[in-house]
Amino acid sequence: MSHDRRDAGFKRRTRVDDALATLLDGVGAHGRTEPIPIAEADGRVVAEPVDAPAPVPGYDRAAMDGYAVRAEDTFGASSRSPAVLRATDRDGDVASGEAARVHTGSDLPEGADAVVMIEHVEEVGDEVETFDAVAEGENVGDAGEDVAAGQRLYDPGHVLRPSDLGLLKSVGLRDVTVYEPPEVAVIPTGEELVQADPGPGQVIETNGLTVSRLVERWGGTARYREIVTDDEAALSAAIERDLDADVVVTTGGSSVGERDLLPDVVAGLGEVLVHGVALKPGHPVCLGDVDGTPVISLPGYPVACIVNAVQFLRPVQKRAGGTTAEPFPTRRARLDRKVPSEPGTRTFARVRLAIDDGGENGGSDAADDSASDPPLVATPTRASGSGVLSSVALAAGWVVVPERREGLDAGDVVDVELWEVTE
Amino acid sequence: MSHDRRDAGFKRRTRVDDALATLLDGVGAHGRTEPIPIAEADGRVVAEPVDAPAPVPGYDRAAMDGYAVRAEDTFGASSRSPAVLRATDRDGDVASGEAARVHTGSDLPEGADAVVMIEHVEEVGDEVETFDAVAEGENVGDAGEDVAAGQRLYDPGHVLRPSDLGLLKSVGLRDVTVYEPPEVAVIPTGEELVQADPGPGQVIETNGLTVSRLVERWGGTARYREIVTDDEAALSAAIERDLDADVVVTTGGSSVGERDLLPDVVAGLGEVLVHGVALKPGHPVCLGDVDGTPVISLPGYPVACIVNAVQFLRPVQKRAGGTTAEPFPTRRARLDRKVPSEPGTRTFARVRLAIDDGGENGGSDAADDSASDPPLVATPTRASGSGVLSSVALAAGWVVVPERREGLDAGDVVDVELWEVTE
Repeated sequence: MSHDRRDAGFKRRTRVDDALATLLDGVGAHGRTEPIPIAEADGRVVAEPVDAPAPVPGYDRAAMDGYAVRAEDTFGASSRSPAVLRATDRDGDVASGEAARVHTGSDLPEGADAVVMIEHVEEVGDEVETFDAVAEGENVGDAGEDVAAGQRLYDPGHVLRPSDLGLLKSVGLRDVTVYEPPEVAVIPTGEELVQADPGPGQVIETNGLTVSRLVERWGGTARYREIVTDDEAALSAAIERDLDADVVVTTGGSSVGERDLLPDVVAGLGEVLVHGVALKPGHPVCLGDVDGTPVISLPGYPVACIVNAVQFLRPVQKRAGGTTAEPFPTRRARLDRKVPSEPGTRTFARVRLAIDDGGENGGSDAADDSASDPPLVATPTRASGSGVLSSVALAAGWVVVPERREGLDAGDVVDVELWEVTE
Repeated sequence: MSHDRRDAGFKRRTRVDDALATLLDGVGAHGRTEPIPIAEADGRVVAEPVDAPAPVPGYDRAAMDGYAVRAEDTFGASSRSPAVLRATDRDGDVASGEAARVHTGSDLPEGADAVVMIEHVEEVGDEVETFDAVAEGENVGDAGEDVAAGQRLYDPGHVLRPSDLGLLKSVGLRDVTVYEPPEVAVIPTGEELVQADPGPGQVIETNGLTVSRLVERWGGTARYREIVTDDEAALSAAIERDLDADVVVTTGGSSVGERDLLPDVVAGLGEVLVHGVALKPGHPVCLGDVDGTPVISLPGYPVACIVNAVQFLRPVQKRAGGTTAEPFPTRRARLDRKVPSEPGTRTFARVRLAIDDGGENGGSDAADDSASDPPLVATPTRASGSGVLSSVALAAGWVVVPERREGLDAGDVVDVELWEVTE
């Protein structure tokens, strides 16, 4: 291997969006589904349309504390001239001329069609004097007011959250059919890598671990494999073993010069779709397809590895799992230094976030530009270098500089992408 | 119980911030810690300061492909007059007059102190002609360049993310000492509640399930208890049974008029700190302390229950677990309808988010007001009503209207809090 060969693949770099579109083109939901109890479905992806089998509430209910009545029995009643009704048990029917005590949310007794508020009633022995006329349906919440029977609740692809589980349970469902988590094989490669106790020239494997844990956060199941050395036959065998996975990812070593055998290995097994993407850090990424399984070869520099995992692995894994990658949440902040970038290349600049001491008014206001959080200042962690794991591990997020711009200036207001969120 | 009693406790409502400060005042980290393998530590809270035991990289390394040399051997070399060195094996020492082939990231051979880039070298048999003079340290990355030995990496309270695990592993650590997840007992209460198959007047329990799953998302362990009926003795017994938990939460029934026995029950066991908070929906929340255990009685209306869980349970649980509740991520959006609110009350308005079709330029730009995402429009899901689970389960987040404002107007740009994030 000569030094020249390393750069040979990157003369023409593909734009990020084009590279992703090419990779996604052949990928669909894996189609393996399972019914699971609702209580265990947080974070899972809905696989079939979910309709409400029953209305919520399941019955007409009192919307106020008071007396359930037949509305017509109150017609003409007023503060001067009450209608006098007989108190009856709320568990029985309410017949003409009767009134039954109800509380907000109680089911409306059979026969009743309205509720007189308790404030407009005087209880005199067995009699209920109502000083207000109510119309049919007044102070009554209808069955199905919250959810109608048959109403579509969720379409396939929706990722369930705790409040969704409550809604699913409330309509009487016990199970929900979801996609199985997509399987992602993560294969660390590099002859210099060891899992522990590095000797001279050896480096501890970290990329595979980090990517595996990202896979799990993104709703997948990671197969975190043994380290494979820089040998074409060994790499081929490792990839072939995992072609039953939904996605295969290799990660390069963390610091030693790339051997970059993977493009040849992938070409030998299947097809290289893209080699070299116009993003920084991390352009040497290689996207391939082997027998219909996407194979993503992530570069070895830790930050480059993570950037590419977020750009390519996450969308592919999400799609295989039956859903789509939502944009990350962001926080607005003001850059305190310039961020250089090359036009034509999408650049990811890691930043730390801190509260801007210059902004005195720390008060919250939902509706102005200072927004509900104190103004933040974003400090790029290092101007360059992609080998520095600590610059990403210690950063809060990154600023994305789009292809059409040539850097960002100190003072620019930016959206910092939070690609590792803690709830 | 009369209808009057329900409102009696809320004549003076405590401001949200004051209520929270009062509740947090008696709460500290629970102090139970455990060492766990780094690979299993995603999302866990660091319990002891973590310093790097070893530098990263652990050795001086080549920063370029080329030849490792003693710098002084190249002094005077130029493109016209090369210094001629003997090629030697990179696994041995580099003696005076020798040069050893290295790749980017290789450890620097013993004896060498600089690297001549491969572009400035010509290999002639066993000889290496270097056409460039290098200074000591040139093209060499120093040991500890990424992380210095002894460097503080994380302070207690830091919540570990995948990239943090990589960093911890890279410095040679195998375990990290974290707080055990805080234990949160979740007790659903309400005589009308059933777990399934509701009859007339019965309602399926959902609040306890939703809150339990939120507890788990927030890094805690939920004890999701059986439903307890509206009976003071039963409620007391249920709370006392769980006083070994770090936090006890009760949830009210989902729709039937509040019996609101909990304030009396808590007062009987310990102390009611706050009853009635100036927030909407959900003012009837009750915050108490029983033998040092925070007891939070969440209201029964589903949205009110969730709003209060986020405002009070989450910060208390996080503090018990050794960390702090970070602000939620937000997304900027433009309101398409007004949101009414009362001054003095903090109001949470659920909204759906959609991409604004009016904004044609969907392009991304990190540094202007349209930000890196398409402009979003926020539609309040319902103007009022806190009993509507679907309004929160189907919403993307909520807009917080601070106490000092009287509503928000259509067209206002707001930050939508995403309180249930999917990564």
